[in-house]
Amino acid sequence: MNQEMKVIDVDIHNSLKSHMDLIPYLPEPWKSRVAGSGLGLPGHGYQSPIGVIRNDCRPPSGGPAASDPEFLVKDLLEPFHIEYGILTGNLMGVSTMHDPDHAAAISSAYNDHLVENWLEKHTQFRGSILVSAYDPLLAAREIDRMADHPRMVGVIMGSGQRALLGQRQFHPIYEAAERHGLSVAIHPGTEGAGGSNPPTASGYPTRYLEWHTSLSQNYMAHLTSLVCEGVFEKFPRLKFVLLEGGIAWLPHLMWRLDKNYKGLRSSVPWLKRMPSEYIRDHCLFSTQPIEEPEDPKHLISIFDMIDAENILMFSSDYPHWDNDVPTEILKRLSPEAKRKIYYENAKALYHL
Amino acid sequence: MNQEMKVIDVDIHNSLKSHMDLIPYLPEPWKSRVAGSGLGLPGHGYQSPIGVIRNDCRPPSGGPAASDPEFLVKDLLEPFHIEYGILTGNLMGVSTMHDPDHAAAISSAYNDHLVENWLEKHTQFRGSILVSAYDPLLAAREIDRMADHPRMVGVIMGSGQRALLGQRQFHPIYEAAERHGLSVAIHPGTEGAGGSNPPTASGYPTRYLEWHTSLSQNYMAHLTSLVCEGVFEKFPRLKFVLLEGGIAWLPHLMWRLDKNYKGLRSSVPWLKRMPSEYIRDHCLFSTQPIEEPEDPKHLISIFDMIDAENILMFSSDYPHWDNDVPTEILKRLSPEAKRKIYYENAKALYHL
Repeated sequence: MNQEMKVIDVDIHNSLKSHMDLIPYLPEPWKSRVAGSGLGLPGHGYQSPIGVIRNDCRPPSGGPAASDPEFLVKDLLEPFHIEYGILTGNLMGVSTMHDPDHAAAISSAYNDHLVENWLEKHTQFRGSILVSAYDPLLAAREIDRMADHPRMVGVIMGSGQRALLGQRQFHPIYEAAERHGLSVAIHPGTEGAGGSNPPTASGYPTRYLEWHTSLSQNYMAHLTSLVCEGVFEKFPRLKFVLLEGGIAWLPHLMWRLDKNYKGLRSSVPWLKRMPSEYIRDHCLFSTQPIEEPEDPKHLISIFDMIDAENILMFSSDYPHWDNDVPTEILKRLSPEAKRKIYYENAKALYHL
Repeated sequence: MNQEMKVIDVDIHNSLKSHMDLIPYLPEPWKSRVAGSGLGLPGHGYQSPIGVIRNDCRPPSGGPAASDPEFLVKDLLEPFHIEYGILTGNLMGVSTMHDPDHAAAISSAYNDHLVENWLEKHTQFRGSILVSAYDPLLAAREIDRMADHPRMVGVIMGSGQRALLGQRQFHPIYEAAERHGLSVAIHPGTEGAGGSNPPTASGYPTRYLEWHTSLSQNYMAHLTSLVCEGVFEKFPRLKFVLLEGGIAWLPHLMWRLDKNYKGLRSSVPWLKRMPSEYIRDHCLFSTQPIEEPEDPKHLISIFDMIDAENILMFSSDYPHWDNDVPTEILKRLSPEAKRKIYYENAKALYHL
């Protein structure tokens, strides 16, 4: 492999070796409860017929895939010349828990474990502050608690939620993130779990295939909400990262939203620009799973419509079943577009 | 105006003059109930700041817009040389009612009223059999009852539903429609009403602007469900019409679904072709509200990706706030593409 490109990977799913890893970081009563019964994260009930985790990512030292920092460096960062890896974890389901204090306790313990076991031991990793959006005031407090760590570069939460993320109850999260210069990311996968809504506007799909295909729809709904509720007017320095939701729906959404805004703008008088302009200026998207049309020129056309080279960032989604490597996607882009998508957009966003 | 093109309009919202129009067609106990309390259709609670009905469509004879067949002919069909108008009504909300017998009674009365007052009096109108999908066996029975009328050319139901329309409980509707050679259409606008689900995968949006923008997401979910549940393998002659849901999301959906199918096909062994092939062969889409990018070339690119000239049909959506007229959209298409979209695709589908 001849890969001269520098790479930043914005979505690596580090894992705990076991829920017992969090015990040292949990206060009572959560310490005893987690020790006795596990983390308590709700499942969504959609089982992939081929499994979600790549078997060949399991570290020789034992434990689940992506739970051994040394092996992750050797298996992903070194072979693909990844300079920095943004760790996003796999506990985004805290937002779907029924008890907001339980969710906050798990989040805090995970964040402390992340700092001690990953960020302070490996210079190439950067962390995302995990929060549950269920109680936005607790989430904002957690952001305040963790934001000063120099290797915490953003906030992460699940896109499976009780409500659309532009709505006012969530604004304390954005206020705290903006104040600390941190971007806020969402990640799919918890749709339909616990206290979240059914994963489509017509209820529960039957299989993982339909469920996974429909995850992008939730992204469209959140993005519409974020723009229309005026989040980017209220928090003008906020950057929002939509991880793993695809991108080929963006032309549709921008056009439909702009068109509707022209007719209905009296209902959102706080907006001062076209909805699509807020998306272009405030939102970034990750590559995996990039849509792959039979004719690759079609994807290039979509890229042109959304100015992809300025809003897209490479992600591997390691160690998941459908993960990408830098050498196998986006082959037809210009060298400049590749440099931005593989490296510069993330470097600027995360101040690396 | 110089318009030589022949036109079929596949989405005209005829209206009752008043709910009292249905009284002669209703059996007891529904007759007394409707006379005393109205139709009983649930509202969705999203109020457009500018109103949904064009004021200038009100007939001089009195009554609501599109309730006077003679005026509708003069106001829409004649000026735009519309040869046939497919009437879709405005009672699709029956699927969201809480009592399936009530919903079936309203549907039957509406269908009888439609035949007597529109279809048998005006040669240019064609009708859609209204059904509530809540009780699919009652819906199939209604299709059987009405299908023989020569001017009933399809079935219509709302896209706001309790469940995704590919799921097995709905198959009796498709069996009946296929047996009678009728297409099945869905129409948005009832999302979030009555017994339907919240209109997004993260609950209720705040305003009509966000709600309306998100309606397309429900279409993506239904279409994914229809394909993956094998509806088009089980009913190989069935045609499905997705009215008023937009089209620029189709490339994304086809690509994401095809890609996921490649990895997860073991869960849908009844599928014999790529998901996008079922969509191309079995589904038709209506134009209004067509997405309108700033650069019209972008829409042409989308058209190329989805073979739009073979799956798209012109619709005015008269008398709604955002309706289109044939002379003001799709100006850049080739004459052949225009002929198909404005006329031939609908002529073939509805056997006109």
